[in-house]
Amino acid sequence: MSNENQQPRKLSPWREKLHLIIFGTDTKSGKAFDVGLIIAIFLSVLVVILSTLDAADEKPYKTIFYALEWVFTILFTIEYITRLMVVRRPLRYATSFFGIIDLLSILPAFLGILLPGTGSERLMIVRTLRLLRIFRVFKLARYLSEASALRKAFYISRHKIAVFMTTVLIVVLIASALMHVVEYGAGNEDFKSMPSAMYWAIITMTTVGYGDIIPITVVGKATTAVLVLIGYSLIIVPTGILSAEIVSASNSQGNKSDQACPSCGGHDHDFDADFCKKCGGKL
Amino acid sequence: MSNENQQPRKLSPWREKLHLIIFGTDTKSGKAFDVGLIIAIFLSVLVVILSTLDAADEKPYKTIFYALEWVFTILFTIEYITRLMVVRRPLRYATSFFGIIDLLSILPAFLGILLPGTGSERLMIVRTLRLLRIFRVFKLARYLSEASALRKAFYISRHKIAVFMTTVLIVVLIASALMHVVEYGAGNEDFKSMPSAMYWAIITMTTVGYGDIIPITVVGKATTAVLVLIGYSLIIVPTGILSAEIVSASNSQGNKSDQACPSCGGHDHDFDADFCKKCGGKL
Amino acid sequence: MSNENQQPRKLSPWREKLHLIIFGTDTKSGKAFDVGLIIAIFLSVLVVILSTLDAADEKPYKTIFYALEWVFTILFTIEYITRLMVVRRPLRYATSFFGIIDLLSILPAFLGILLPGTGSERLMIVRTLRLLRIFRVFKLARYLSEASALRKAFYISRHKIAVFMTTVLIVVLIASALMHVVEYGAGNEDFKSMPSAMYWAIITMTTVGYGDIIPITVVGKATTAVLVLIGYSLIIVPTGILSAEIVSASNSQGNKSDQACPSCGGHDHDFDADFCKKCGGKL
Amino acid sequence: MSNENQQPRKLSPWREKLHLIIFGTDTKSGKAFDVGLIIAIFLSVLVVILSTLDAADEKPYKTIFYALEWVFTILFTIEYITRLMVVRRPLRYATSFFGIIDLLSILPAFLGILLPGTGSERLMIVRTLRLLRIFRVFKLARYLSEASALRKAFYISRHKIAVFMTTVLIVVLIASALMHVVEYGAGNEDFKSMPSAMYWAIITMTTVGYGDIIPITVVGKATTAVLVLIGYSLIIVPTGILSAEIVSASNSQGNKSDQACPSCGGHDHDFDADFCKKCGGKL
Repeated sequence: MSNENQQPRKLSPWREKLHLIIFGTDTKSGKAFDVGLIIAIFLSVLVVILSTLDAADEKPYKTIFYALEWVFTILFTIEYITRLMVVRRPLRYATSFFGIIDLLSILPAFLGILLPGTGSERLMIVRTLRLLRIFRVFKLARYLSEASALRKAFYISRHKIAVFMTTVLIVVLIASALMHVVEYGAGNEDFKSMPSAMYWAIITMTTVGYGDIIPITVVGKATTAVLVLIGYSLIIVPTGILSAEIVSASNSQGNKSDQACPSCGGHDHDFDADFCKKCGGKL
Repeated sequence: MSNENQQPRKLSPWREKLHLIIFGTDTKSGKAFDVGLIIAIFLSVLVVILSTLDAADEKPYKTIFYALEWVFTILFTIEYITRLMVVRRPLRYATSFFGIIDLLSILPAFLGILLPGTGSERLMIVRTLRLLRIFRVFKLARYLSEASALRKAFYISRHKIAVFMTTVLIVVLIASALMHVVEYGAGNEDFKSMPSAMYWAIITMTTVGYGDIIPITVVGKATTAVLVLIGYSLIIVPTGILSAEIVSASNSQGNKSDQACPSCGGHDHDFDADFCKKCGGKL
Repeated sequence: MSNENQQPRKLSPWREKLHLIIFGTDTKSGKAFDVGLIIAIFLSVLVVILSTLDAADEKPYKTIFYALEWVFTILFTIEYITRLMVVRRPLRYATSFFGIIDLLSILPAFLGILLPGTGSERLMIVRTLRLLRIFRVFKLARYLSEASALRKAFYISRHKIAVFMTTVLIVVLIASALMHVVEYGAGNEDFKSMPSAMYWAIITMTTVGYGDIIPITVVGKATTAVLVLIGYSLIIVPTGILSAEIVSASNSQGNKSDQACPSCGGHDHDFDADFCKKCGGKL
Repeated sequence: MSNENQQPRKLSPWREKLHLIIFGTDTKSGKAFDVGLIIAIFLSVLVVILSTLDAADEKPYKTIFYALEWVFTILFTIEYITRLMVVRRPLRYATSFFGIIDLLSILPAFLGILLPGTGSERLMIVRTLRLLRIFRVFKLARYLSEASALRKAFYISRHKIAVFMTTVLIVVLIASALMHVVEYGAGNEDFKSMPSAMYWAIITMTTVGYGDIIPITVVGKATTAVLVLIGYSLIIVPTGILSAEIVSASNSQGNKSDQACPSCGGHDHDFDADFCKKCGGKL
């Protein structure tokens, strides 16, 4: 039997109950579980962040952080196993986005025992495992129900955003090539390689402007001024597109009722309308 | 008798008159009071700002600023006491937002006498009291009647803004962890701790770009370029949402006829409505 | 006879003709005059800009720029005198915005002869006169007819923008006071005076981020991160408001004809409608 | 026979077939050609970018990049010749935007052989030819069909954008002149020349804020704070305009019924129209 066609298994009553608590949001215990999980996610991410501070390498903080890390790992392990037990299609959950995120939340700690290593190599592994632990924050995504509206706006605009990104790519490339010729020709080593010039172009056109790479020639400064104005105009385009999409999305849904008039079949009634605005018949 | 159920007291005629002047805006004297208060707030904040300049520690400026500070404190004290006297429920006013702001406007000066201290400790207290004096600017909030439209737009969008802030949090965390591994691994001490990397991520993604912490490796610069483009796209989302909310808020007001129904007096009819949507009567 | 009630004088025929050329835009010679004036404004501003370069103090450039400056001064003087001669109410023109701008365009050169001075004092005067010459660019404002739409959008939003600026003022003040206490308390001299802290707050919250004044303490950096996120959200508000105003302004004007149906009096017809959409009668 | 009036030539069957593959997008081979061309463009641009790295001057990379450059040049040469052969009006294609871009994509490599030169002169030529090679990225523009919507939005807003750019020019000039007088007067050499001050004004008002040129006087900093707030407000205007244009553009499409008039076949009726606005027939 393939994974895809796997029949949902029947759950025993206590599994049903656990399922309701973990996946439901309507019951009191379901809400309590959600709040507890959100707090645990925030705290465990905070522990990961704080454990990178210098003071965290000293006693007694090191022991505390080590202990806390294992407390959260065990908590999330219990959560993961319980989820596996109470879902009707365990394989589908394990291979879903949230299943993988849940697994990644507990894996680093166990891998840290299995793959000790020594010296600088071990340090690199520790840092990479820490990076993976930070991915726990994705567990929050479960609670972003409002995000679907944003995702929809992004989805509708995806072609326009692709066009926009291609346009930005073209402008960045032309700007970089221009500055490479102008500035490197005048001896500014920062614009020697195209990747470096492209880094400058992106940092400048998004108006971040670190100031680590700057034009030094008069022509370079003039080009920069023009590029900034053009790039700035270009980069505001997605704002306009997105606003327009959200406006039209909320317009088409928000203001009018779907209900037709039973007398004349007229549409476009407000939600608070009791009578048809066309024929005056009762709605 | 509890604070909440406190009966509004009856005011004597001159208190009624003072109440009208201080809380009203329609009478001539009420307007004069408001303008006077706004000027006093601006001047007193200006005095606080100027008193931090080096020259303010020298004679004769020190004496002048000290005197001015007390002039404003006495003015605001009189205002506070008068407000307490003329409101019908003094306790409710004293515990309201503006009551607390009015108290905080005068407290620092009096606390400055009571808690002198010496040396660096005193300096810290002086600076903290100055901070509290700056809160006087909140007294201006009384006059921001238009602000309610903005507050409404914010209120309607609060769920979307929460979703957005969570998304930003996730992106900032992932970006910080990535740069921590990439840049600190290559020896960039600025990315040693996660909080430092997160500070960099926020300063970069909001396009402030101080340039105090910058990537030095090629991979770090490439990651930064991608993060800036993603982060930039993310951060424009609230603009779109807010625009859309304001547009639809003003649409729902603007697109409606002022005409009241002659039968039931109902409002909010579409411009092209022929019949009242409430009672079905001919418009 | 007062300035305000001054009767428009009658103009002789050649004055009428000149009036049509200078103030009109429909005739061939009127258009030629406008194009010529715009070119003269751009060139004269370019001369002012280039005359500040180092090379402009050397021969022969100095002589050329001096000559060009007088060419443009004489041209604009002739324009100013002609305008005074051909308008029906010379006093009203002389005291209008454009009258003052036109006078300011020629005054600096004449003042430069009258008030020579010596040494550093003279240098200051020369620079200030140059500043005044740059104001010639305002003569372009005459040709910004489209600007009225923008001005209208600004005008409609003026209360909201005032509220917004007050809110920004409050946030900047609170942010400055906080950072003054936190950073100066930790020894960062850049935050010693409140004006300096306010400069930092504005440069940071508008995302300019020069990097000349930056927080150095952990608390200061955390405060900055929060302030940037808040300030950023605040500063995007006017974009939303302005977009909304422009959308609703163009909606209420742009799409529908003012014409009522002669049969049923129905409104809201499209510009290309030939028949009433309500009763089917000929428009 | 002039270029413009050139009659489209008849193509032999295999040319017709090639034409369909190269210019068509509906057939399988047509799609494969497009995907192949897009990949070739990206790879060839990547080769140009990577060939500017230091490592690219060493063996064996130098040989590899040289070989790859010629592979892409030959590929694009074949494409160019084929296009010339299969179009019905070769001259019109050769002088069109894409014809020139296609020629510029292959010319640099051939020019590199013809014009060797020596020393620094040759270096300048090499860099300029590289700049031209980067223009290959414009070949992508062929596939930006969605871009027409953006182009339309830009086209509709062109007058407003012109007004906006003139306004920015005026603000930049006034700001530069002010800072030139204030800052250069106080000894800040960065503001000595107007072009330098204008570069500062543009970098500051677009919120890039490199920090290479900054005000040092108190008056200069205060002026900067005011200019940033004004400039910031000004620069957000195009966002608002563009949003509004896109909204109204999508509104004018979205708010109309798809229904054609049964009498005259006219489109673009409002959703609530009962009669055709063109012929007055019942809908």
